[in-house]
Amino acid sequence: MDLATIIGLIVAICLFGWALVSGVGDDSVMDVFFDTPSVILVVGGSTFITLLSCRLERFLSLAKIVKNAFFLRGTKPAELIGQMVKLSDVARREGILSLQNTVAELSDPFLANGLQMVVDGTDADTIKSVLELEIDALEQRHSEGKGVLDLMGKYAPAFGMMGTLVGLVLMLKNMDDVSKIGPGMAIALLTTLYGALISNVFCLPLADKLSAKHDEEMLIMDIAKAGILGLQAGDNPRILEMKLAVFLSPKMRSEIEGLDRA
Amino acid sequence: MDLATIIGLIVAICLFGWALVSGVGDDSVMDVFFDTPSVILVVGGSTFITLLSCRLERFLSLAKIVKNAFFLRGTKPAELIGQMVKLSDVARREGILSLQNTVAELSDPFLANGLQMVVDGTDADTIKSVLELEIDALEQRHSEGKGVLDLMGKYAPAFGMMGTLVGLVLMLKNMDDVSKIGPGMAIALLTTLYGALISNVFCLPLADKLSAKHDEEMLIMDIAKAGILGLQAGDNPRILEMKLAVFLSPKMRSEIEGLDRA
Amino acid sequence: MDLATIIGLIVAICLFGWALVSGVGDDSVMDVFFDTPSVILVVGGSTFITLLSCRLERFLSLAKIVKNAFFLRGTKPAELIGQMVKLSDVARREGILSLQNTVAELSDPFLANGLQMVVDGTDADTIKSVLELEIDALEQRHSEGKGVLDLMGKYAPAFGMMGTLVGLVLMLKNMDDVSKIGPGMAIALLTTLYGALISNVFCLPLADKLSAKHDEEMLIMDIAKAGILGLQAGDNPRILEMKLAVFLSPKMRSEIEGLDRA
Amino acid sequence: MDLATIIGLIVAICLFGWALVSGVGDDSVMDVFFDTPSVILVVGGSTFITLLSCRLERFLSLAKIVKNAFFLRGTKPAELIGQMVKLSDVARREGILSLQNTVAELSDPFLANGLQMVVDGTDADTIKSVLELEIDALEQRHSEGKGVLDLMGKYAPAFGMMGTLVGLVLMLKNMDDVSKIGPGMAIALLTTLYGALISNVFCLPLADKLSAKHDEEMLIMDIAKAGILGLQAGDNPRILEMKLAVFLSPKMRSEIEGLDRA
Amino acid sequence: MDLATIIGLIVAICLFGWALVSGVGDDSVMDVFFDTPSVILVVGGSTFITLLSCRLERFLSLAKIVKNAFFLRGTKPAELIGQMVKLSDVARREGILSLQNTVAELSDPFLANGLQMVVDGTDADTIKSVLELEIDALEQRHSEGKGVLDLMGKYAPAFGMMGTLVGLVLMLKNMDDVSKIGPGMAIALLTTLYGALISNVFCLPLADKLSAKHDEEMLIMDIAKAGILGLQAGDNPRILEMKLAVFLSPKMRSEIEGLDRA
Repeated sequence: MDLATIIGLIVAICLFGWALVSGVGDDSVMDVFFDTPSVILVVGGSTFITLLSCRLERFLSLAKIVKNAFFLRGTKPAELIGQMVKLSDVARREGILSLQNTVAELSDPFLANGLQMVVDGTDADTIKSVLELEIDALEQRHSEGKGVLDLMGKYAPAFGMMGTLVGLVLMLKNMDDVSKIGPGMAIALLTTLYGALISNVFCLPLADKLSAKHDEEMLIMDIAKAGILGLQAGDNPRILEMKLAVFLSPKMRSEIEGLDRA
Repeated sequence: MDLATIIGLIVAICLFGWALVSGVGDDSVMDVFFDTPSVILVVGGSTFITLLSCRLERFLSLAKIVKNAFFLRGTKPAELIGQMVKLSDVARREGILSLQNTVAELSDPFLANGLQMVVDGTDADTIKSVLELEIDALEQRHSEGKGVLDLMGKYAPAFGMMGTLVGLVLMLKNMDDVSKIGPGMAIALLTTLYGALISNVFCLPLADKLSAKHDEEMLIMDIAKAGILGLQAGDNPRILEMKLAVFLSPKMRSEIEGLDRA
Repeated sequence: MDLATIIGLIVAICLFGWALVSGVGDDSVMDVFFDTPSVILVVGGSTFITLLSCRLERFLSLAKIVKNAFFLRGTKPAELIGQMVKLSDVARREGILSLQNTVAELSDPFLANGLQMVVDGTDADTIKSVLELEIDALEQRHSEGKGVLDLMGKYAPAFGMMGTLVGLVLMLKNMDDVSKIGPGMAIALLTTLYGALISNVFCLPLADKLSAKHDEEMLIMDIAKAGILGLQAGDNPRILEMKLAVFLSPKMRSEIEGLDRA
Repeated sequence: MDLATIIGLIVAICLFGWALVSGVGDDSVMDVFFDTPSVILVVGGSTFITLLSCRLERFLSLAKIVKNAFFLRGTKPAELIGQMVKLSDVARREGILSLQNTVAELSDPFLANGLQMVVDGTDADTIKSVLELEIDALEQRHSEGKGVLDLMGKYAPAFGMMGTLVGLVLMLKNMDDVSKIGPGMAIALLTTLYGALISNVFCLPLADKLSAKHDEEMLIMDIAKAGILGLQAGDNPRILEMKLAVFLSPKMRSEIEGLDRA
Repeated sequence: MDLATIIGLIVAICLFGWALVSGVGDDSVMDVFFDTPSVILVVGGSTFITLLSCRLERFLSLAKIVKNAFFLRGTKPAELIGQMVKLSDVARREGILSLQNTVAELSDPFLANGLQMVVDGTDADTIKSVLELEIDALEQRHSEGKGVLDLMGKYAPAFGMMGTLVGLVLMLKNMDDVSKIGPGMAIALLTTLYGALISNVFCLPLADKLSAKHDEEMLIMDIAKAGILGLQAGDNPRILEMKLAVFLSPKMRSEIEGLDRA
């Protein structure tokens, strides 16, 4: 579980709820801040406009995309480097073919596919171009996934504003009873509030989180690519470690000391 | 038909209409929310400013551009890969010239043109540069098409705001009768509402959809290009399949299992 | 004449004028919507700030830049391809030197300059780099020209807003006479309206149009470049036509059938 | 002196001042539009936030950066081309070493440095990479200089808005005396006006001007680079002129006719 | 200490505080401008949404990131060039291996690592690619660090606006007591003010400062890279100095005269 996502989301919602409750006084929060037609208009409208804006498959995978923002990726850069160095050690001592068994045990299909090509004796250029195509394709999928949240984060405030305009028009048309102006405008503003909430508390932060996770995964894949190409070139473990350590921050580099030949 | 486009658009419009009807009370919706001069100003103004902003041919093809957002492209990536692998199998067994008949049957001009060059014995560099020029040119045409919708999505809210300013000025000049302030301002706000609707419910979502479809079509063309170049290079079917499968997501890859040598 | 520019501009202005007239009632439109100091502030201010923001030569050529948006470029892609194919036919039959006379007749300096280099026997790399420099330089000039309109489109609404702030401050300082608040605010809003008009009806649409025309001209120049290099390489007419047709949309391709060897 | 900058700035300020004076009536302009705390808050706040946002050296060179916007660069493209062609003529007739004296007389360090390398017999690749590094470094310095104005143009309206919020809060807290609401809000709006003025009349237009001047200077340096490399390659004057003329617009090209061998 | 950051921040805050105090009159500033629930909502909300938006490690290093904006980097470009020239002098006279001792004394790990590779006799391509990977990785880390501040600068105003909407809704629902409208709206506006303050006085200026510092550090690393590669190639000190001086502005170049062979 990605604690940052969960804690961030829960605390932000609680803070917001507390602000509502502490402001309301003796009324019920739901009476003041919940207006069913407004919720339906903003949530429904922005959802279906997002459906209109993107591909059906992509929209249907929204739940899966959002789920990714709540889970951590297994591999850490320092661990992966340790693993690559160990493999290079094995390859040096027992020959490249001895990695065949390791390949079968790998859970990461990118790494498994790359190592399989090394074991099969594929040449470096082919390995490199296949791995780069895989990275490009993943980049494309990630950006499309994030794109659904971006679209929703763009259309939710637009629907909120349109709802407020509708509410204002209705209120202004019936201004005879001055005592109703206040509550009428309060309801009109609710759709803007809903739109801002959906956009700024859910869609855009989750899209930003996916973007951060994407950068992290790209780092892992760049390390794996460099490691696989190093194995193919028959680099000795020490040189491979030096090459891969470059991807790490100085702080992370100290972590591999105890890991690399464990 | 692209169900996502149709369902998204219809449901969003229905939700919006329902919000209007449920808010109006005993008046007629049309009386409250339809003001002929405002509609003419915003729809007409943004249409003709878009005509001013882009090329005549492009503007006239607007209907065709919008239509594209409502239809699905025939070929799926997994099907295309299956087809390319089958062609490579035929080419291996019966020689590259045997593909001549297949070329005549192909409905996709890009694929047909590429295969024809392979059959004609054109060298790889020429094929590659011709195919890339075709892809670039399509990219240019798609971005111009999407551009018309983007322009309209930009100028519609601007015209809406200008209409509201005109309405406000008129209302403020004649503030003697206080009872008319409310309705006057309601009508002034309608143009802003119309501009936001045109932009956020039609133009921008359709432009986003075209953009998603463009990405999909680019994927198809990238696969076709890689496949054609693989055929030219005489790749064996198994290697070609591996090369092309890289373009697919892990989930889509499982789909080609049953397809590729059907 | 570029009908799209002219019709778009005139109809948009007429629609806007009609909205004003139909809204005013029995007053004169000029009385309500024309305020001399506001016009001078917004038009003058944004003009001189644009002068401050860009180079004098560029600013002075504004009229010429705007004029370009109202005229169509002579050559059409299909015509140019037909012409290049014909030249290639002549060059094949009568030798490259026979093109000398054609060069003198060409009105397009880019094409003339390129062909002259071919006739002079300049090598392909030099021709290519000279033509690319010319294209880059034109791109730079076009983007500077469009930039003047972009600047004006950016500063006009800013001056409009500043005018409104000035008007609001004046009105608020003298709020004793409540009956003057409405008209005072109406005048204050006029500058915002003027700024929005200048920006959204003139500057930005014309800048967008110049941008569309630029893309069109770039296409012409790319075709001319490819054609000149094909002539230099001695391509036969059929191959040259195939190479150049790639730049056209499928629909435009059908147009060259009747043209190419006329 | 750059007349466009000076005239643009002075006329824009005069227009604005005139709008203030003509609007004020019998009060003094200073009484209505000058509020010392507001000026201090917006000018001081945006200045110190800009200091916080950029490097000290860069901030201190602000006066020098702004000064650049008011002066014209000496060399014109056509003159420079004439000069390069003359140098190439000398080099052809009297040998490359004869340029040593010319180098000492050159006021432009970029040109002097480049020619010195040619005279010293440095090879083309080294000259090219040194000149490109100089161009990159100048680009970096220019963009940092412009950046200070951009930062101030971004933070001035933000401080204006914050000042207005402070003023509104103060006014709303003390709404007992209704007659003070108007003037209180007038003062609150002044900070927004100041922020908009600083940004739209000084910072952003000057940044845009620097950007235009940068493009101009880049053109000069590109011509100088191409000319120096042509001298090194021993191009004859006619060919060099043709190569360099490509950088000019057709209109500017006619200017070199009378200049090039003066 | 980076005086620009400290002076800029302190003076801007003092100016703002002074504006508050001078505006308040006889009330206490805290009574008027401090509202505990509003502070908690905006500060807490934007903090936790930022936590939701980025990676936990990155969020936790926020303090360290901010600290960087307050300290100056040790090395100045001119000093570094002097140092590289001195090293090249030593290497020429005593051989490249004599640099081994210097490497141990270097505090900058980038320089030390690069020189160590030179001493170890690593070939130029490997050194170059390792150094470039390190620069890319640092760029990535810097941009992620700045990204946390950017996110907070984006979500703070959004939370401010949402708080204001909540306050407005509450106020409008209870409009019976007209005397409470003013103070209610004042409190509602406070969250917008807090959001603008957090964003424009802390987050965005500090992010801009980090960006300026990043550019500075990139310059240092580019000089170090060029210097290390020059040492590896055995450049003589004079040529190395000329190569590295290109990275400096004309003004900075004069500084190295007294430094380079000290």
